[in-house]
Amino acid sequence: MRTSKRSLAMQASPIRKLVPYANAAKARGTKVYHLNIGQPDIETPKVFMEAVRAADIDVLAYADSNGWEPLRESIAAYYQRMGLPYVTEDVIITNGGSEALQWALLIACDPGEEVLVPEPFYTNYRGFAAPYLVEISPITTYPENGFALPEKAVIESRITKKTRGILLSNPGNPAGVVYTAEEVRMVADIARENDLYIIADEVYREFCYDGKEATSFGTMTDVLDRIIIIDSVSKRFSACGARIGSLTSKNKEVMAAALKLGQARLCVPTLEMIGSKALYDLDPDYFAPIRARYEERRNILVDALQKMDGVLCETPGGAFYAVAKLPVDNAEKFAIWLLTDFELDGKTVMLAPVENFYQTPGMGVNEARVAYVLNSDDLKEAMRVLKAALEAYPGRTA
Amino acid sequence: MRTSKRSLAMQASPIRKLVPYANAAKARGTKVYHLNIGQPDIETPKVFMEAVRAADIDVLAYADSNGWEPLRESIAAYYQRMGLPYVTEDVIITNGGSEALQWALLIACDPGEEVLVPEPFYTNYRGFAAPYLVEISPITTYPENGFALPEKAVIESRITKKTRGILLSNPGNPAGVVYTAEEVRMVADIARENDLYIIADEVYREFCYDGKEATSFGTMTDVLDRIIIIDSVSKRFSACGARIGSLTSKNKEVMAAALKLGQARLCVPTLEMIGSKALYDLDPDYFAPIRARYEERRNILVDALQKMDGVLCETPGGAFYAVAKLPVDNAEKFAIWLLTDFELDGKTVMLAPVENFYQTPGMGVNEARVAYVLNSDDLKEAMRVLKAALEAYPGRTA
Repeated sequence: MRTSKRSLAMQASPIRKLVPYANAAKARGTKVYHLNIGQPDIETPKVFMEAVRAADIDVLAYADSNGWEPLRESIAAYYQRMGLPYVTEDVIITNGGSEALQWALLIACDPGEEVLVPEPFYTNYRGFAAPYLVEISPITTYPENGFALPEKAVIESRITKKTRGILLSNPGNPAGVVYTAEEVRMVADIARENDLYIIADEVYREFCYDGKEATSFGTMTDVLDRIIIIDSVSKRFSACGARIGSLTSKNKEVMAAALKLGQARLCVPTLEMIGSKALYDLDPDYFAPIRARYEERRNILVDALQKMDGVLCETPGGAFYAVAKLPVDNAEKFAIWLLTDFELDGKTVMLAPVENFYQTPGMGVNEARVAYVLNSDDLKEAMRVLKAALEAYPGRTA
Repeated sequence: MRTSKRSLAMQASPIRKLVPYANAAKARGTKVYHLNIGQPDIETPKVFMEAVRAADIDVLAYADSNGWEPLRESIAAYYQRMGLPYVTEDVIITNGGSEALQWALLIACDPGEEVLVPEPFYTNYRGFAAPYLVEISPITTYPENGFALPEKAVIESRITKKTRGILLSNPGNPAGVVYTAEEVRMVADIARENDLYIIADEVYREFCYDGKEATSFGTMTDVLDRIIIIDSVSKRFSACGARIGSLTSKNKEVMAAALKLGQARLCVPTLEMIGSKALYDLDPDYFAPIRARYEERRNILVDALQKMDGVLCETPGGAFYAVAKLPVDNAEKFAIWLLTDFELDGKTVMLAPVENFYQTPGMGVNEARVAYVLNSDDLKEAMRVLKAALEAYPGRTA
């Protein structure tokens, strides 16, 4: 029995495919520093489990298809605290940001239509688009200028009759780029002038450094009917395993379509919604010490990378990733070599090669994503190991 | 901004669309007996919340994409207790049976390909298939012979070059039909001889009455590579709000494709998997008293329906639904009239019209699904109300 062509064509997770090499290294007794994954080490706020434990449930029944109303209200209140214009009926709860992204693509695009996406982009966008026959048309950005968006004319030159929207994350994964207010305004203008949706993945909204803030697309009040905001508790509250996300829009047709998609799969888990409401009800001060902790780590990581010979890494403004251009022939080969052939004092590091975060063939071959979700001491040690590895790697190019 | 044609074409839930009429009736002070929904009133076993409350979680991290291994092991053990040949690596955990059904269709079919489905069928199958451009080709079954499958030649006459599988639920929703061992064998033969998948939705497996058992497709050992079993804790353990399902197959390519789909959306919620493991670890004796309770209700319902003038309802063998052919011009009109224009002693009933459970236009116009998830006293009273309503309805035909 053959499986469908489209299921064969789906990519395996490039982030997870090096795991067997890491497991083998650990089995040999090597300590592996995981710079490859975006799983925060921050404790999930205790209010989550407290709210879940307090739930008094005799029959764990279906919830409403658009989500538990108290959670929708708490998310609307969260937006309003930030000055965004969203109310309860603009919010629908989803199975993680993942489902919200799938729906947004499905609502924006018929089969064969496409969205523009600045590359490198979160590689799972591909897994969301492919089963629905939505094409990703990349807008290439470059490490040399910190992955800033190109000029308006460059982006507009990529628009075709099939283009239905622009999908982008801000702050971004994998490069940690935070778009300027001018870049956000430019994207809004492009959408208005070319009749496009903006699918704004803002799950890292609170993780901006150097005293800056990310400009939410929800502040672009002249194009609110074009905007679909994707959010999630995963990174915001270090609750990746809750799988609670949301899709938010002022566009009534978008919300009607989302509700039908919600009804088709009935509902989202009740307990996780109860816990997530407690997260969104946290005092906004919750974020300040966590942001400070990530900023300290970012500085450790980037300072170390920038001092390594031949490494290019502009300081990223947000999220908890950086993309570094490395003096190696191939970042995936290097990442495997780190796990199979290298150790320093019994230690090595695991990186995420970035080639699969690009849509354009050949891009990103010598780039790797480095996540800073380790504590500062481990991060310093991981940088010492990486520096030694780059010096020892036989495929070094510079 | 227009939304995609395919999102406009998706059906709103026909089960939920009468809800505004019911709310209006309740607002007038009318008691509404809900015969329209499949939400069991049985208490969720306490072990679910006990296991969740006991979970000691500092960081609620991503789970494995194929599911929490102890849950997969418990589901495999559950299958093995029933004599089915499945082991842990044959099982992947999904967001409810809903996601498992979506994946099975996606794995079996490329766009434009189709699955045969006996109609009437669970109407949400349509919502799973449509976004992926999978066509549903109906095999019509009839209330007059208890919705039994037609002869092999009739089914085979519907197979085209585009047909990739047969999707069916056993025991069935909406008609509560339990296929005989011969019918299951026939479907297996058709699949083998015509190179088809069998997508077997067996979520009501334990709910069979009159001392009978449903024959699982997992017992068809000559076609195991063609079989994809869909399961869920929703009905089995009255845990609809947990949204924990599973996809099970001996076909390695199917499981590899399912893992890629799982990686694309990362994972399923951790807490709900912890609770669900406790459910699958329950003593199999758990089901006997619940089955007895449903059987008593079924008898009350069907006895009453069969005594009503002009009503046709063959005794269903499983699940907790029956489809009744009613002496009315249109079952949806009747269902609305029940909520807007009728009451008996301040009470009325809510039915689910079955027309949308058929793919063939014009079928099922005067049929309704009646769920027996109320206690026996309420069910008797609901039948008294329904009988009076059928006598009073202006659109009565017989």
